[in-house]
Parts: sequence; structure tokens; C-alpha cells
Amino acid sequence: MAAPVALIQGSSRGLGLEFCRHILRNRASAAVLATCRDPEGAAELRGLEAQHPGRLTVLRLDVSREEDIRGAALRVKESFGRLDLIVNSSAMLHPSGRGETSLRDVSAEGIISTLTTNTVGPLVMAKYFAPLLQKGGGGFGQQPVEKPKQHSGLIVNITAKVGSIGDNGLGGWYSYRMSKAALNMATRNLSIELGRGRPKVVCVSLHPGTVSTDLSRPYHKNVPTDKLFSTEHSVNCLMSLIDALNMEKTGKAYNWDGAELPW
Amino acid sequence: MAAPVALIQGSSRGLGLEFCRHILRNRASAAVLATCRDPEGAAELRGLEAQHPGRLTVLRLDVSREEDIRGAALRVKESFGRLDLIVNSSAMLHPSGRGETSLRDVSAEGIISTLTTNTVGPLVMAKYFAPLLQKGGGGFGQQPVEKPKQHSGLIVNITAKVGSIGDNGLGGWYSYRMSKAALNMATRNLSIELGRGRPKVVCVSLHPGTVSTDLSRPYHKNVPTDKLFSTEHSVNCLMSLIDALNMEKTGKAYNWDGAELPW
Repeated sequence: MAAPVALIQGSSRGLGLEFCRHILRNRASAAVLATCRDPEGAAELRGLEAQHPGRLTVLRLDVSREEDIRGAALRVKESFGRLDLIVNSSAMLHPSGRGETSLRDVSAEGIISTLTTNTVGPLVMAKYFAPLLQKGGGGFGQQPVEKPKQHSGLIVNITAKVGSIGDNGLGGWYSYRMSKAALNMATRNLSIELGRGRPKVVCVSLHPGTVSTDLSRPYHKNVPTDKLFSTEHSVNCLMSLIDALNMEKTGKAYNWDGAELPW
Repeated sequence: MAAPVALIQGSSRGLGLEFCRHILRNRASAAVLATCRDPEGAAELRGLEAQHPGRLTVLRLDVSREEDIRGAALRVKESFGRLDLIVNSSAMLHPSGRGETSLRDVSAEGIISTLTTNTVGPLVMAKYFAPLLQKGGGGFGQQPVEKPKQHSGLIVNITAKVGSIGDNGLGGWYSYRMSKAALNMATRNLSIELGRGRPKVVCVSLHPGTVSTDLSRPYHKNVPTDKLFSTEHSVNCLMSLIDALNMEKTGKAYNWDGAELPW
């Protein structure tokens, strides 16, 4: 079987960087494609590249630019011809760095730019990379014995529990919540389109918990320390879920502990 | 009690136009503010204005322009100082006029422009008009006897059943489905923020059924005739729901027949 290939979108820091680190460390055979907006400025990613020569490829990709995504897909097609896993990781709370606490903070510009990064980006990624996932070898996830139920690849969209409409009891964070609700719809739609016929691609939304990253930094003081995950802990949990994914689990949103989240 | 004031956003045709007609015909005391992008080109709306002198005011408002929304809210504040009902009606399937049948049809530009009209617009409307709804007299909906449970105004976002993530079994129509899922999150968030303290504003998403409008026109041949509603029938159903709205029903999505829709 060919060595598995994973693409981590938004890998210069936070969860994305940790996904790269985790896969390089725990999957000796896997190749990792790490995309970020500014490879020159991504010092930690560059360090990882030096530690794992030949296994990590850094690609420049701004998820808000369809041309970048198309170009990156073309490069991956030429170099590998296939993909086994995509993790869409990059996200913003709001361009200001803080979620809206009330309508007063809402602006059309703020919502649109949050939606562009958190929602439109992952869907356009799926558009250009789905053909490569359909050529994947199913190197990630859990494969059932029956061939017709096997998958060739996985799409993991990092969602957030606050993107659950049914679970929303507090309000606020208009842009972020709306972007993740719409992303969950994208996941669901993708799971239907890419689950028909064969080859099949599994598509899920995963909630990483409240993770200590730049995105959550302004709110750390409000989170009990045992509820604030390190990126290592969160990615450990998420990779356990990913290792157990198959077509029976496609089209849903899951919490870091595996519990299904309401829409 | 002061005469009720309703604002119908997207009123040059389709459901919006019919909401204006319905309220003018059935609420002898109500004033109607009808917004549309191009009042000069809205012949039917102009005809309605002539039939109901002094009761219908047409305002120019492009829901994708925050400045237009702010300006219209200022004019309504100066003329009426309050509002009892907003219906956010304008929507597009996709700039091409046809929903995406597969990922091949997806483009960043198409999703963003659909989200801008269908999702961002209604939320920015709420931002600028909520203060006027909080000064409303509760002239629409059903008021309970207990004062603390009464509402001053209503926000009705026209959603679509295909915007329900849980109900999505067919896929396709990426932009439209995502825009309506995100709109439902906006409704939920608004219901929380505007349901705290007093005065209270009820916020719901309503599905009008499959209605014979320009939006659905390319698909009419696929809809059994008894399932394709006229705008009159749909607005009759929706106004019956609106007449029964109160704070107990806020923050949810309802079908035209009153059944609650899953998120």
C-alpha cells in the first residue's frame, strides 16, 4: 500500500501545526502537506520541516483566494496524484480578534471576512481536493472488511460547539457561530455528494474543545484550567476520532470525546 | 394604541410584495414600509402605493450595503420612531439563478454573494432596526396577558427547509443551504440577545413552502402542482403563524404549517 498523504490547511500555528507534528511523529510512513498563508513567517513549521526532511512539504495557500487553492491542488496532483486526509483548520473568531458580544459589534464586513475564512475556504478546498481524495488509498480512518463500504479519503472540518444552533443558549459571537453553522451544512452536503457511488470520501465536522490557541487567547481567563486543552491534548483526542472514522460516521459533527453534536 | 408599523425588506416582487399587499388589505390601521433595491423599477409596488395612499412608504435599500440599511433605519426613526414587525424576505439561490448541483459548480464568489444577500443582510437589518422594534407597540403577534411576557416587536427571517442541516438528505445547492443554515443561527442568536430583559423582540425563521416566485422558477417543472404554492397562499399561511407568535415561540424555525423544523 502506498504511503498515506495528509494535507493540513492552516498549519503555521495552533491546531494545524500540532496536526502536522502529531502525524509526523506517530505515522512514520506518512507524508504531510502543510499549507499556510505565509511560509516565510512560519518559523515553527520550518523547524518541523528541518526535523523531518522529505516528509513535510510546506505550500503557500491563502484559503480566501480560490486561485491559491486551485494552484495548490495542481501541485499536489503533480507531486502525489492523491490524498488520504484533509484537515481544514484555519479559522478566526472575528477580524477584530474578539467575537461580537452584542448586535452593536456586528458589521457586514466582519461577518463576511469571518465567513470567507471559516466557511467558504473549507468548501472551496473540498472542490479542488476532492478529486485527489477520491484517488486516495484510504490510509487514514478505519476500513471495514467489505470493499463497497471502504473510503478512499477523509475530509475533516474543524468546527466548534458554539456553531451548534440547537446547543446555543448564550448567544453572542454572531460571525463565528454563523460561520461554523454554515460549515456544518457544508460538511453535511459534502458527505452526501462524496458518499454516493465509489470511491467514497468521509466528511465530518470535529469540535476540538476549548484549546489554548491565539484564537481563544482573549478568553482564557474565563475558562477553568481543566477545560482549557493544550493543542497536544486536543489533537491527540481528534486523531483518535479520525483513526476510527468510516462511512458509517460520515456527515455528522462530533465533540472531541466522540459524542455526536446536535446541529 | 398606536397604529402598527411593518417593514418588509425585499418587497419589489415575490413573497415580499405579497406581504405588503396582505397587510395593507387585512390590517386597515397598519402602515407598511416596503424596501427594495430599485424603487423606480418596482412597478407593482408603485401600483400598490397608489391604491393605498399614505399607508405604504417605499424606501430604497440594497441589503448588501450596510450604509443603505443604516440610512433607512434613520429615516424610519425620524418618521415613525418605532416598528412592530420586520420581515426579511429578499434571497437568491445563487448569482447564476441555479443552485449548485455538485462541487463543480461551487465558487468562492458565488457563495459569498449568496451569503451577503441571504444571511449578512438580515443580520445587519436587525442591528439597525432592533432599537426601533424595542420601541414598538407589539402590534403584531399574540400578546399574553402578563406584561413581562409581552413583546414590543417581531423579526421574521424567511428561511427554507433546505437550510435545515438535520433534514438534508439530498445535498446540492451549497450556497443557498449554507446561507439559510447560517441565517437560522442568526435568528437563534438574535432571539437570545433580544429576549433578555425588556422590551422583548420575538425572532423566528419561517419556511414559506415551495412558492411560485422568480427564485424557484427554474425548478417548477419538478414540483407537483399541489406542492407549489402561490405567493398569496404562502403569505396567508405565514401571516397566520405571525399572528400567533409570542415569546414562547421565539428562537426557532417553523414550517408554513406551524410545525417546528429541525436545525
